[in-house]
Amino acid sequence: MLLRDPVHGLIAFEHEETSIVVRLLATPEVQRLRRIRQLGLTSLAFPGAEHTRFAHALGAAHVMKLFVARMRQLHEDLPFWQRLTSERARDAYAAALLHDIGHGPLSHLFEDAIAHTRRVVAQRRGEIGPDDDGPAAGRARRHEDWTEQILMDPSTGVHQALVRDDPELPRRVVGLIHGEHPLPYLARAVSGTFDVDRCDYLLRDAHATGVGYGQYDLPWLLSTLRFGDIPSIGEAPPEGRAPGLAIDGRKGLSAIESFILARLFMFQQVYFHKSTRAAEWMIRMILTRAMHLLQDGTRLERVPAALASVAAVETPSLGAYLELDDQLLLETLNGWRHAADPILADLCERLRNRDLFKTYELFGERAEAGPRTEALRTLESIAREEGLDPDFYTGLDVASDTPYADDSSLSVIYPGRRPRHPAEVSFVLDRLRDETLSRVRLIMAPELEPRLREALD
Amino acid sequence: MLLRDPVHGLIAFEHEETSIVVRLLATPEVQRLRRIRQLGLTSLAFPGAEHTRFAHALGAAHVMKLFVARMRQLHEDLPFWQRLTSERARDAYAAALLHDIGHGPLSHLFEDAIAHTRRVVAQRRGEIGPDDDGPAAGRARRHEDWTEQILMDPSTGVHQALVRDDPELPRRVVGLIHGEHPLPYLARAVSGTFDVDRCDYLLRDAHATGVGYGQYDLPWLLSTLRFGDIPSIGEAPPEGRAPGLAIDGRKGLSAIESFILARLFMFQQVYFHKSTRAAEWMIRMILTRAMHLLQDGTRLERVPAALASVAAVETPSLGAYLELDDQLLLETLNGWRHAADPILADLCERLRNRDLFKTYELFGERAEAGPRTEALRTLESIAREEGLDPDFYTGLDVASDTPYADDSSLSVIYPGRRPRHPAEVSFVLDRLRDETLSRVRLIMAPELEPRLREALD
Amino acid sequence: MLLRDPVHGLIAFEHEETSIVVRLLATPEVQRLRRIRQLGLTSLAFPGAEHTRFAHALGAAHVMKLFVARMRQLHEDLPFWQRLTSERARDAYAAALLHDIGHGPLSHLFEDAIAHTRRVVAQRRGEIGPDDDGPAAGRARRHEDWTEQILMDPSTGVHQALVRDDPELPRRVVGLIHGEHPLPYLARAVSGTFDVDRCDYLLRDAHATGVGYGQYDLPWLLSTLRFGDIPSIGEAPPEGRAPGLAIDGRKGLSAIESFILARLFMFQQVYFHKSTRAAEWMIRMILTRAMHLLQDGTRLERVPAALASVAAVETPSLGAYLELDDQLLLETLNGWRHAADPILADLCERLRNRDLFKTYELFGERAEAGPRTEALRTLESIAREEGLDPDFYTGLDVASDTPYADDSSLSVIYPGRRPRHPAEVSFVLDRLRDETLSRVRLIMAPELEPRLREALD
Amino acid sequence: MLLRDPVHGLIAFEHEETSIVVRLLATPEVQRLRRIRQLGLTSLAFPGAEHTRFAHALGAAHVMKLFVARMRQLHEDLPFWQRLTSERARDAYAAALLHDIGHGPLSHLFEDAIAHTRRVVAQRRGEIGPDDDGPAAGRARRHEDWTEQILMDPSTGVHQALVRDDPELPRRVVGLIHGEHPLPYLARAVSGTFDVDRCDYLLRDAHATGVGYGQYDLPWLLSTLRFGDIPSIGEAPPEGRAPGLAIDGRKGLSAIESFILARLFMFQQVYFHKSTRAAEWMIRMILTRAMHLLQDGTRLERVPAALASVAAVETPSLGAYLELDDQLLLETLNGWRHAADPILADLCERLRNRDLFKTYELFGERAEAGPRTEALRTLESIAREEGLDPDFYTGLDVASDTPYADDSSLSVIYPGRRPRHPAEVSFVLDRLRDETLSRVRLIMAPELEPRLREALD
Repeated sequence: MLLRDPVHGLIAFEHEETSIVVRLLATPEVQRLRRIRQLGLTSLAFPGAEHTRFAHALGAAHVMKLFVARMRQLHEDLPFWQRLTSERARDAYAAALLHDIGHGPLSHLFEDAIAHTRRVVAQRRGEIGPDDDGPAAGRARRHEDWTEQILMDPSTGVHQALVRDDPELPRRVVGLIHGEHPLPYLARAVSGTFDVDRCDYLLRDAHATGVGYGQYDLPWLLSTLRFGDIPSIGEAPPEGRAPGLAIDGRKGLSAIESFILARLFMFQQVYFHKSTRAAEWMIRMILTRAMHLLQDGTRLERVPAALASVAAVETPSLGAYLELDDQLLLETLNGWRHAADPILADLCERLRNRDLFKTYELFGERAEAGPRTEALRTLESIAREEGLDPDFYTGLDVASDTPYADDSSLSVIYPGRRPRHPAEVSFVLDRLRDETLSRVRLIMAPELEPRLREALD
Repeated sequence: MLLRDPVHGLIAFEHEETSIVVRLLATPEVQRLRRIRQLGLTSLAFPGAEHTRFAHALGAAHVMKLFVARMRQLHEDLPFWQRLTSERARDAYAAALLHDIGHGPLSHLFEDAIAHTRRVVAQRRGEIGPDDDGPAAGRARRHEDWTEQILMDPSTGVHQALVRDDPELPRRVVGLIHGEHPLPYLARAVSGTFDVDRCDYLLRDAHATGVGYGQYDLPWLLSTLRFGDIPSIGEAPPEGRAPGLAIDGRKGLSAIESFILARLFMFQQVYFHKSTRAAEWMIRMILTRAMHLLQDGTRLERVPAALASVAAVETPSLGAYLELDDQLLLETLNGWRHAADPILADLCERLRNRDLFKTYELFGERAEAGPRTEALRTLESIAREEGLDPDFYTGLDVASDTPYADDSSLSVIYPGRRPRHPAEVSFVLDRLRDETLSRVRLIMAPELEPRLREALD
Repeated sequence: MLLRDPVHGLIAFEHEETSIVVRLLATPEVQRLRRIRQLGLTSLAFPGAEHTRFAHALGAAHVMKLFVARMRQLHEDLPFWQRLTSERARDAYAAALLHDIGHGPLSHLFEDAIAHTRRVVAQRRGEIGPDDDGPAAGRARRHEDWTEQILMDPSTGVHQALVRDDPELPRRVVGLIHGEHPLPYLARAVSGTFDVDRCDYLLRDAHATGVGYGQYDLPWLLSTLRFGDIPSIGEAPPEGRAPGLAIDGRKGLSAIESFILARLFMFQQVYFHKSTRAAEWMIRMILTRAMHLLQDGTRLERVPAALASVAAVETPSLGAYLELDDQLLLETLNGWRHAADPILADLCERLRNRDLFKTYELFGERAEAGPRTEALRTLESIAREEGLDPDFYTGLDVASDTPYADDSSLSVIYPGRRPRHPAEVSFVLDRLRDETLSRVRLIMAPELEPRLREALD
Repeated sequence: MLLRDPVHGLIAFEHEETSIVVRLLATPEVQRLRRIRQLGLTSLAFPGAEHTRFAHALGAAHVMKLFVARMRQLHEDLPFWQRLTSERARDAYAAALLHDIGHGPLSHLFEDAIAHTRRVVAQRRGEIGPDDDGPAAGRARRHEDWTEQILMDPSTGVHQALVRDDPELPRRVVGLIHGEHPLPYLARAVSGTFDVDRCDYLLRDAHATGVGYGQYDLPWLLSTLRFGDIPSIGEAPPEGRAPGLAIDGRKGLSAIESFILARLFMFQQVYFHKSTRAAEWMIRMILTRAMHLLQDGTRLERVPAALASVAAVETPSLGAYLELDDQLLLETLNGWRHAADPILADLCERLRNRDLFKTYELFGERAEAGPRTEALRTLESIAREEGLDPDFYTGLDVASDTPYADDSSLSVIYPGRRPRHPAEVSFVLDRLRDETLSRVRLIMAPELEPRLREALD
């Protein structure tokens, strides 16, 4: 199989070792990823960002080929039982391709909707308090759970393709996706600071959005890849344990700094972009409204089975979950433009025409818990005066993430010195380490913006 | 308005002259282009090809900015009444953005379905013979007609945005899109051998598919752009007529050759790709089957209004047409997987899982009219023996196009010599001129392929 | 004038306003930059780094066109006497093109040789102590001095081209190159944190060396450029003073971070590369040896006039200085391979065949003043034992620079807030601000390396 | 060895099989290629074109790695004695790196000078007539001869590096460079329509000049590479002969068209550029003049030994030839600016300041033998009237080449059909096949141009 890819140029899976990729690509569950965009509604802000999870999954499998080739240049120094056999490589290709197979539509929005609905219902039932996010709210199924189910359920094409090779394969691939494997270096290539997932999505998201500085030098980084481990303090490394991944600091320091900074830049410019966040917030409001209506017994047109289950506080069946892709969800919203409920209809109409809600960013002290709640109250009262329900037409959006969590999954080595954390040898990464990036914004229907600016500016 | 674009990098519409673009982008009809892929089902063969007609429309408007800037470097030599005023530039931006506004879903497939249905109905009614394609079959509405209607109908957002500036603007923009304007150079920039549409789509399609050699050097080509005309034989140019577009042959010959060859390469590699053609053929069969069923009175789930009109041999209303985008059409097909009609259900199921039909290309003499019909007959009888309806599970697909039709819309000039056709000064273009590129393929359900190969190889 | 450039694609100077560039390009002093590589001997480590100061000067003038276009989008808000007239733009183009016109061969090496020779002579004469670098050592002429002389000396082609337009032009361009101009924004575009020099050399050096992560997004940065100033503490801005340059923090923060980090990466990977530093050190030893020999009365073949002047502790004439380019200097060294002095001949032979000296990097405490001197003593005694003169076959090389000196030349603005230093709003830049990047290395003839490693490892 | 390259990104020679490359790179003869530009004086027209033959040689060796990897994917189908062993791969790497090792300075100009001098001397001696180019003029040594000598002469570093591996290696590498090898596919990779030399120089020249459309898709072309042969008419292929190279026509047709057209474009835009041709013509005149002077017994400063030999109609020694690089030749010309002969001094001064001769292109019938001679006579008489020696200040320059000579070194294959010539399956290549591209230009000192234009326009 020979494919062209806008990011990697040529993608080839032509050998027996990679034939698992070709077989998995033919399954309905992998084909479904064609109908889920990698970046949800980001194309509303960056028109090129229409790339799918399918293209990303392919790209991650391709990058795994590059990792495997590099690790095989290195593994001669390991005892033979720690080397990268064809079987282990095969497992790694499958894990790379399938790592996101459980993702629902529109990025994390469907997950959020499930969680929110569970919480609201629990609140209504009095099981939890109004601000309670705790365990009693019940843990919603996350995409990782779906991933595991898709791999393990004998009915799926993915499961069948895997067991054709080896009945233990689904279980091992699940393990790898969770970063668990007897060969730590292989586990880290699937899930770690420098893994095939990030390698592909940073390049792909940067490329599709047109954001130039989310780039880094993948071939060079791979050429500086080594085997190595950060020893735990006061402990000898376990006897006979295989090594993890490391970077040769003499050649690769700038390259790994650049790789990690690329993630910071993508958060600042793309993942936290105000228009994307506003659109995602609108979707969340639409789903919330629809769940409320369904729970109150209102009839809505063409409710996909998975949403009906959520409204009934049940876990959707695997089949229903897999049906729900961007296309179905957006068509459902499209249909709801004609719903009897005016709020639901209005929100869906606005979204369709990209008549997005506006944001007002809060900086410094105004972004802290007290003042921001106060600002929201001001906004809500403006909404009420303008005849809009503040629960659906206003909101407070807090985007936050940690672009670089220093988690020991990658070390930096210099000859004759113990392996160290990247942040120990890079003053830039030392500063970035565990830094939380936050954006606090009020969100509102556009017609509320002038009065809010007047009140807050 | 400042946008990032994977092809052009930065796209800015920040001046009064380009404010029409910003206003048009906010209309529902332009936003609808977000839901129509530029290359239909091509992403089934090239996974990156998810780019939309919206991104292309934006790109074409951006390229028009480059054309306008260049033409203003040149227009000093013209009498003042032939220069590119702000108003004329505004018209050109609108035409660039709107040139494809009437496109239906999945590239040309919906148009084809309308035409096919009209023909079949006329055949059934005995109005035309079985192989008659002629005028009695009735002319179906094409996307150009819809474009005109969208611009001229007072109910559309596009029309309203245009008339806000000038009541005559819709009519003038329609003219420009058809290549008609008192300033030939402006008309050629909208529609000609070297126009903003091609400039953008070649770069964008090459970029999204990852096909490296569909590139050409746009900034250089623009820098070699001149005003000029190929004089009609034996005639003086009309008194006072403004010039058309030309390329300076001393600097730009390779560049224009490369530009025109890029189109050849894209046809060979992308537009005529076997998997895309097979998928499009499946869509055509699905729509045909559905139309037959509807005309026979069979009830199908959730038939979009535009399809119902087609089945009733009526022209869809503008509203119904605009509703029909890739998302709605593919979701409709998705629903038909559960239709009672086994053929319709089966074709839809196959398409959804990318279980595409196979192709068998016919070369040389075997591709000519007689032998290829014979080959199709062979295939049809295999289908019958295998229990598959040959009308829907087999077919003959003839893709053909003329990558370079030498139409006088661009001339090449050398100092002190009369302007000439590109093909007069380039031996490569002379060879390519009016060359028809054809691919003849049998198309079949995959299970028929082994027997066909046995029969024909 | 229309040129192709590997970095910017198309470079055009076709208007009256930029005609000064075309005229200056024809002068012998600008043509001389064709014979001086931008990165000295870096091509010994990065084979692609053959790009010249001529290409960089052209590139800087091209970037100035982009700056001028952007500043004119912004200057409408200024009083008319602060706007960017054609004359002021012309001055800026000249300054961009000429900013490095005084550079000597092989980057800064010739300057270093002059300074070193003056110091040694002063030491020999007893005017200064053995480690004295102070003012008594005399200030050597630096490339900035030569730049000023080339612009101001009536005999040069550059001077003549400038005064043809305006007798005051040479003086004004000298001022601009030094960052002095009544319009601070124009001065900052010539010399500042974000200036045309850096904009071009970062892209060009990254491109020529093939170091992928020295890139940044120039068009985006320009689109976020604003006018603005960081107010001095406790002071109102001077009445009527024009503004400096600023970046819009909402859109440009990642872009300016990326731009400044690009410089850090280029220092880490390219400018401080061990092979380049070793080669430069060899050149320095060769020139030092030659100066010693000449001062001692030894006759050397074909000594360029400028070197003879340096040996005589005289300032070279302008003509002699301009004669001395990479080609002449390297051919001179080539001839010295056959000198009677064995050290001079040996060093020249090694350099020609890229038989470079080796480096041994000192980290942490070992890089501090005491220990590193001790390490050098060890190396010197090994050299002596091996029969090599330690003054020429060993050395200590300390490379250090400040990739980001926070100097108020660029501010970041957010609506409704006072302009601030980049480091105030970016935690990454806050960490990088005024950070000194250092590399401490022992340098030695390759045959000494094994014994040194044995001694120090 | 790990290198960064502006064209290929990362170049690595880290395995035993490629260690020959690392050893050869350390030889003085390969290092000498750093001092010879790949495109001679082309940087006078394209300022970025400073890339060296050294960078190209490295690039060709890198592309050979890609070829070897691809050929090893294919060679499983061959009998074991025809496979690509490590030894054969080693030979191929050496041939790729060394294929141009014998090139003299400034591209082919030094060769031309030798040939011209021989002819003039033979004419003066009456051995041949004034227009005689025939065999009696003696065959000058060409760079291919020098290449063979450098490989075979026991004194060179290259020879010694090769024989360290195998005493037969120099001979085998010479054979490979000439396209001779028992494995035709390997010979074709070194020298053929699609060989590592062209693969690298097209990309590198396009990249360095900034000419965008000289690009093609190397990874894709390699993926479509096959083994195959065009059978000679009426003959069975020799028993047991290994195959040559072929392209899979189904996937690779556009790619090979694009590759071959890239060469056409580079000739049209770069290799035949008027400024480059004028500068080369000036060099030729300078060398001719100097040879005449030397033969007449005039003393010139610092004549390199190789030039002295040429003037004496002797073949330079290998040592003298290897001394002569761009740097030495250009410095020699630089010194001749002060020669007593006014013509020699004047030409050298003009060249140094890029005061290039002008060209006047002749098209159509005017470019044919009779009329162009007549035009030259006109130009010569203008020169005489202006007091300039027409032998040195005017000339007729005929540049001609065949971008695509269809020579059976590459075939195109389709399943089930005999291999064919590219031109048999591509109508574009059919047109280009054996087409001679010519540019006929008068060349003159700039001061003659106005009168010539007046006379000829």
